[in-house]
Amino acid sequence: MNRGDLRDIGLAAVLAVAAGAAHYSDATPVLSFVLAAAAIALLARLVGGATEQLGGRVGSSAAGVVQSALGNLPELFIALFALHKGLLGVVQAALVGSVIANGVLVLGIAFLAGGLRNGTQYFDSPRARMTATLMVLAAAILSTPTLASAFHTPAAPHGRTLSFICAGVLLVLFAVTLPSFLSGGDGIEGEPPRWSLRLTVIVLGCAGAAAALTSDWFVAALTPATHTLHMSQDFAGLVIVAIAGNAVENVVGVQLAVRNRPDFAISVIVNSALQVALLLTPVLVFASLAFNTTLTLVFPTLLALALLISGAVVALVVYDGESNKEEGAILIGLYVVIASSFWWGA
Amino acid sequence: MNRGDLRDIGLAAVLAVAAGAAHYSDATPVLSFVLAAAAIALLARLVGGATEQLGGRVGSSAAGVVQSALGNLPELFIALFALHKGLLGVVQAALVGSVIANGVLVLGIAFLAGGLRNGTQYFDSPRARMTATLMVLAAAILSTPTLASAFHTPAAPHGRTLSFICAGVLLVLFAVTLPSFLSGGDGIEGEPPRWSLRLTVIVLGCAGAAAALTSDWFVAALTPATHTLHMSQDFAGLVIVAIAGNAVENVVGVQLAVRNRPDFAISVIVNSALQVALLLTPVLVFASLAFNTTLTLVFPTLLALALLISGAVVALVVYDGESNKEEGAILIGLYVVIASSFWWGA
Amino acid sequence: MNRGDLRDIGLAAVLAVAAGAAHYSDATPVLSFVLAAAAIALLARLVGGATEQLGGRVGSSAAGVVQSALGNLPELFIALFALHKGLLGVVQAALVGSVIANGVLVLGIAFLAGGLRNGTQYFDSPRARMTATLMVLAAAILSTPTLASAFHTPAAPHGRTLSFICAGVLLVLFAVTLPSFLSGGDGIEGEPPRWSLRLTVIVLGCAGAAAALTSDWFVAALTPATHTLHMSQDFAGLVIVAIAGNAVENVVGVQLAVRNRPDFAISVIVNSALQVALLLTPVLVFASLAFNTTLTLVFPTLLALALLISGAVVALVVYDGESNKEEGAILIGLYVVIASSFWWGA
Repeated sequence: MNRGDLRDIGLAAVLAVAAGAAHYSDATPVLSFVLAAAAIALLARLVGGATEQLGGRVGSSAAGVVQSALGNLPELFIALFALHKGLLGVVQAALVGSVIANGVLVLGIAFLAGGLRNGTQYFDSPRARMTATLMVLAAAILSTPTLASAFHTPAAPHGRTLSFICAGVLLVLFAVTLPSFLSGGDGIEGEPPRWSLRLTVIVLGCAGAAAALTSDWFVAALTPATHTLHMSQDFAGLVIVAIAGNAVENVVGVQLAVRNRPDFAISVIVNSALQVALLLTPVLVFASLAFNTTLTLVFPTLLALALLISGAVVALVVYDGESNKEEGAILIGLYVVIASSFWWGA
Repeated sequence: MNRGDLRDIGLAAVLAVAAGAAHYSDATPVLSFVLAAAAIALLARLVGGATEQLGGRVGSSAAGVVQSALGNLPELFIALFALHKGLLGVVQAALVGSVIANGVLVLGIAFLAGGLRNGTQYFDSPRARMTATLMVLAAAILSTPTLASAFHTPAAPHGRTLSFICAGVLLVLFAVTLPSFLSGGDGIEGEPPRWSLRLTVIVLGCAGAAAALTSDWFVAALTPATHTLHMSQDFAGLVIVAIAGNAVENVVGVQLAVRNRPDFAISVIVNSALQVALLLTPVLVFASLAFNTTLTLVFPTLLALALLISGAVVALVVYDGESNKEEGAILIGLYVVIASSFWWGA
Repeated sequence: MNRGDLRDIGLAAVLAVAAGAAHYSDATPVLSFVLAAAAIALLARLVGGATEQLGGRVGSSAAGVVQSALGNLPELFIALFALHKGLLGVVQAALVGSVIANGVLVLGIAFLAGGLRNGTQYFDSPRARMTATLMVLAAAILSTPTLASAFHTPAAPHGRTLSFICAGVLLVLFAVTLPSFLSGGDGIEGEPPRWSLRLTVIVLGCAGAAAALTSDWFVAALTPATHTLHMSQDFAGLVIVAIAGNAVENVVGVQLAVRNRPDFAISVIVNSALQVALLLTPVLVFASLAFNTTLTLVFPTLLALALLISGAVVALVVYDGESNKEEGAILIGLYVVIASSFWWGA
């Protein structure tokens, strides 16, 4: 465990404690919300780091399973607490938001940072293109129940059934694709694990538990905070939850781009979005049966359209075979405009 | 004529006779429907095989015309009988369904089968990419009248006129593109014709006549069968008619993928979808003027959206330059979800 | 100044004078409209030519700025006069129409003409692909306020605010991308300037002034002429204004394709569409604050859908790496069908 690791752990601990203090004191909801969001972002990164270390231990074939299952823990916690509170819109927006935040915002930052450092970057890896293709296909599947409900009168009352069919198909696809593209992390020739197995398990356990607690506080503060800030719950899910729970973790993708390894950067970033679509989303759909609020895949129409457009944009941006700072800037601009249009609402 | 040919012909004859017996007896509509659908699928394949043999005879320049004109006979018959019965929705869904079934389902099966047999398959033929481009352009043209009617108030009452403009443009485009991309079948270095010209003409005539009869029985059973099965007519058109009338014929595309010739597989499969868009659809629009029910290109909105998404997906999947079983599985998953959303309805 | 230049100037002068005569006499509005449109098309070409000459003088770094600022003068004039008259729909349609006319119609003509002359043309320039990517991203940004207003209930009343956010983002992106892709005109190894600086400035001044006058007459004749012709104002903007103000100027792109330089042809044509999206549109949004009619980016829904589809089509057509006359013909067909669906209306 090196100095950077210790700093990360310390900072996450401080933020988590502060978030807890804010939750149990008279702090304003906005402060609780911000602290909890920041803590979750760091804990998500810690969980991501620890699962990677664990992945390095268990052998590359199991690593994919471990990383998929544990890497999305923080988002899973937020979603479960939010569903428990009946905040359906937040969860839906957060799931779609994870895909958009990774595919458009983080990819844009990676292109911008990589372009500023290295000039135009070329990539021609079939792996990156294939990941992008799978992403756009997953986006198409995920948006079909919404399109059917919004634009097809006879299907509209059956959104729930369609959602379960869709979630079932996604889970099957996850199982089918897991061996190939998720264990493909070995492409990023794993650094040898720096942490002992014991330490890894401890960090993972503590960070996971802290993420669970913090998620609870975050969700508790969410409704009052968004009211105070005149922010819609869609926006809170699409932007705040998605960035805190998933996107910050992907800072590693940006680092890869800066180190002039655009192929790996793209694979890491897009893969993360893909896991949300193929695993986290259907798991939550089925898990939600235990709650009063069923998570359907019938999103607000604009959410599904944004998902489709983002999926197509990811594919095109990857297929053109080069990235530069202009492309990165335009991707970030697209994210800003999409996010803005979700600002208003309940 | 080899053993396989004889087996195909025998099986088609048996099924056609069984479908006829079911039609003229007290068989349940569902049985008539299933038998007629199966017979049509085999007859369509037979017609396809015979037109190919004929194409080998008449020289490559005329082969394209012959194949386009005769290869779509079974779908043409079904569509004409259905229009005669006023089943507009079935015909619209069947036309769009042919494009989606070929571009998403059959392509997915080809990728899956090819991937299971040969691992990742690479293709880099400009011909395959160009066919995919033409496909997505045709899908954009074909969906414009629907988008205009659904989303543009002033255009809505003019869907009929727009449909005729659109059909006229499609026919011109068919004429313009025919010499180049349809006769391009010579890329699939034609096996020397195995059948004599006489035999070819006899098979074609008999299979065509049988397809006409069976289509009549199929359409007669369609409404009662779909009622019994609680299946919408949209679904019957999109899935059953499309697969029976067009997609089964494309088993040859899957075989090409298994034989590790992905470029040809893609060209054959996508070309088949393209012929439906550029030839069969506008011909039916104009032919429908002879019926009480005019075929317009103002589809149910979801049908046009599914067409657009499928067109884009075909293009991306072809452009990424490789296919594997995962991509195939996701394509099939997308088809399942799209088809499911059309299950409900009248 | 050679004979061709003189002919162009003479013809533009004659048409501008004729348009003025029609405006100030009892000519029918349709005649005024047609003459003014023709004059604007030629003046736009002249302004384009003169800014290119000026670009050659001022050094390649400033050339991009000059060309962007001055090359869109004629469209800017038309839009300002139309906004002044409250013709919001015409201006919106003209902006989107410039993108569609360049990306679909002019590109289609370039592919068709290039294909007829040179057979299949191959291109594999990252620059052309990158321009297409930026184009599709700009189209996605530009259509977001419309999608939000049409499909997201809470955002609908905030279309104005969203438009300003969107316009601000577009201007920032223009500033960011200007150094790289607009000055990239040096790729088209500038012919040495044929005109003296003085002559260039004179031509530019005169053509600009004439364009301003003619735009006034054009807008004055627009409403009565469209009424007489039973043409909607959307159509007038999307087709007539877009082609007169922007597309005719791009005849140079077609010439490049005929001269078998497809990469440059694509860059020139798509760049022109990009400038409209990144510069002219946001400038007009902010400039419209000076008028009674604010230009928002909340377009008629079909306009935004056509923009998105056209953007995607441009990207795919460029990414497939080859063009031929069939692809050109289908692009032109798509343009015809899209334009047709805007014919009806107020």
